[in-house]
Amino acid sequence: MAFGWIDEQAELRRRAGLVRTLRPRPADSPLLDLASNDYLGLARHEEVVAGAVRSARRWGGGATGSRLVTGTTELHTALERELAGFCGFEAALVFSSGYAANLAAVTALAPHGSLIVSDAGNHASLIDGCRLARGTTQVVAHSDPDAVRKALRTHDGPAVAVSDTVFSVDGDAAPLAEYAEACRGRGAGLVVDDAHGLGVLGDGGRGAPYAAGIAGADDVVATVTLSKSLGSQGGAVLGPARVIEHLVNTARTFIFDTGLAPASAGAALAALGLLRREPERAARAGAVARELHARLTAAGLEAVRPDAAVVSVRAPSPEGAVQWAAECRAAGLAVGCFRPPSVPDGISRLRLTARADLTEAEIERAVRVIGETRP
Amino acid sequence: MAFGWIDEQAELRRRAGLVRTLRPRPADSPLLDLASNDYLGLARHEEVVAGAVRSARRWGGGATGSRLVTGTTELHTALERELAGFCGFEAALVFSSGYAANLAAVTALAPHGSLIVSDAGNHASLIDGCRLARGTTQVVAHSDPDAVRKALRTHDGPAVAVSDTVFSVDGDAAPLAEYAEACRGRGAGLVVDDAHGLGVLGDGGRGAPYAAGIAGADDVVATVTLSKSLGSQGGAVLGPARVIEHLVNTARTFIFDTGLAPASAGAALAALGLLRREPERAARAGAVARELHARLTAAGLEAVRPDAAVVSVRAPSPEGAVQWAAECRAAGLAVGCFRPPSVPDGISRLRLTARADLTEAEIERAVRVIGETRP
Ligand SMILES: Cc1ncc(COP(=O)(O)O)c(C=O)c1O
Ligand SMILES: Cc1ncc(COP(=O)(O)O)c(C=O)c1O
Repeated sequence: MAFGWIDEQAELRRRAGLVRTLRPRPADSPLLDLASNDYLGLARHEEVVAGAVRSARRWGGGATGSRLVTGTTELHTALERELAGFCGFEAALVFSSGYAANLAAVTALAPHGSLIVSDAGNHASLIDGCRLARGTTQVVAHSDPDAVRKALRTHDGPAVAVSDTVFSVDGDAAPLAEYAEACRGRGAGLVVDDAHGLGVLGDGGRGAPYAAGIAGADDVVATVTLSKSLGSQGGAVLGPARVIEHLVNTARTFIFDTGLAPASAGAALAALGLLRREPERAARAGAVARELHARLTAAGLEAVRPDAAVVSVRAPSPEGAVQWAAECRAAGLAVGCFRPPSVPDGISRLRLTARADLTEAEIERAVRVIGETRP
Repeated sequence: MAFGWIDEQAELRRRAGLVRTLRPRPADSPLLDLASNDYLGLARHEEVVAGAVRSARRWGGGATGSRLVTGTTELHTALERELAGFCGFEAALVFSSGYAANLAAVTALAPHGSLIVSDAGNHASLIDGCRLARGTTQVVAHSDPDAVRKALRTHDGPAVAVSDTVFSVDGDAAPLAEYAEACRGRGAGLVVDDAHGLGVLGDGGRGAPYAAGIAGADDVVATVTLSKSLGSQGGAVLGPARVIEHLVNTARTFIFDTGLAPASAGAALAALGLLRREPERAARAGAVARELHARLTAAGLEAVRPDAAVVSVRAPSPEGAVQWAAECRAAGLAVGCFRPPSVPDGISRLRLTARADLTEAEIERAVRVIGETRP
């Protein structure tokens, strides 16, 4: 029977304790949220919601077509101008998701005959970009500029190095300035995914490339998502105007995809406005993360020192992690639970996100619950 | 210099007359729109906009995380239930785009060692799904059930055939019932992309699989987009519950992507409600397409007989197509212009979409302008 093999896989998952199920949340969840990527607490901010509402009313429910046909509105252009300006790049191109932006950036910048040097800790969307690209991929050790340098030396012709700026699992930052230097030494481009840096790192949340002094360089391209710090949906590629023009002409997830919904574009634009007016939100997210880390460590838990707003806590096993997260939930706390196969190193962990709007009392409560439910 | 090769490609594009540029539209464009995929004219319908507004207010600007973490809301579940029920499938899974839904369906259903039989006219997102999948792809002649049958006979073990239901370039329909029969004869699955069928084909717009009597079969999986007839953004996979559970557990563009924005989910849900109440919209889109085709043909133009709501008109050359579309635009008419490299056969064409809400006078005007500007 068609799809018969699916049942065997399902059985194996069940036996390994690795079944994933969807848990729909109500609009007014009573849980304390340390699981979402809403780092600045903006997804439900009234100005962000108003941005979505205003844009849906003015532009409709959808963009109605590819950005190359009817799907580009003046709203998309305004968002691109603001994103580029805020993050310090010459130009920007908005996509329907961060995933699509990453597929576009990697595939369009790694043509046939080129080399892609990819950090071993990269996000699934960058990995899929490498798989789709015509170039050849060489995976190198995590956060190791020497490994990047060495890999680039093996190749003549077009090359790019590709890396997350902040790795989504453990929240550690990549050595961006060194990566840029390694690339420049070989005439290679650098593509960095700032999904977890935008809104948290850099002056007022301008992102990791800005913080590292590489934003706007003619050999650096960044991707961002609008779905984390900006509380919306969508993604963008930031870079030199010539790279953006190249993407408009060649990136399949741009050409053959419907434009971002106006409500999402409007929400992200409103969030950027808020960030400009209230730059302290960015620093606060980082401070909350460091405080969480300090308190968890003081409570004897094994947590990775955060470089941005993600705090990762080791769990003893996949089952242990699932049970730990379930007990947190039972005690009113939502935490992320990362386990195989979605962690590259096979280590299960709780993943906490430090929202800028967490209060002292909430931080204290979170740490207490995590400590008390520890397996 | 990094990205130096981009300039050479740009120069080649310029010389070939194949440069694409973005043309941002204002909110109140005076153009008569025969270019968008807003087949039912719902993107700016007040109920659809109200659905977006209500959902943004209730749920916020974004889903805040992967659907497996915080990104699944009761709104997503309601949309999935309604999509599955409306289209006649057991279950549904919502994605951030139709592109992401297609990547998920193909990659998750074509494991290592499997065969994918892919129609030569398939959409870029299905093609990228084939490229990403672990299985081996065999491309077969366009809309040829015998070719599918023959390809499936070359392989033992898991296999799927993959096809658009309505091909996006020429608007012709695939022989779905015969594809299903060919697959069933070999125990293979059938994956069909109903992006241009939903809302237009089948009783009240229930889609091409419903019209072909294959919706809900245990060996058939359909993908849809929320960005065309439903006037929003997003996509979904529809199929047996066990296939949906498999996707939840294995599809990378599901697991590693932020959930669809509430406003987009709400807009699509409102559009489905409208379609249930006003089923005549679907038939009207098809009737408008047939009328457009008849009048264009009567005016001596070479148009493909439409099976759904897309009408394709041949242009003499890429430059001719661009100029034709530009002259239509100057005369107040927006039409799509498809040319290499985004057409599989290298033939340039104008692509017209038949909105259900076009008036007789608008149809007449469109045909007159297209005839008068003919190169
Ligand atoms: C590092 C990283 N890049 C890209 C993405 C994809 O972005 P989006 O969810 O907007 O598609 C994510 C998470 O979703 C991520 O964590
Ligand atoms: C046949 C087909 N499938 C899939 C898609 C992608 O859907 P979406 O734009 O919602 O990502 C499109 C067009 O955009 C399409 O024409």
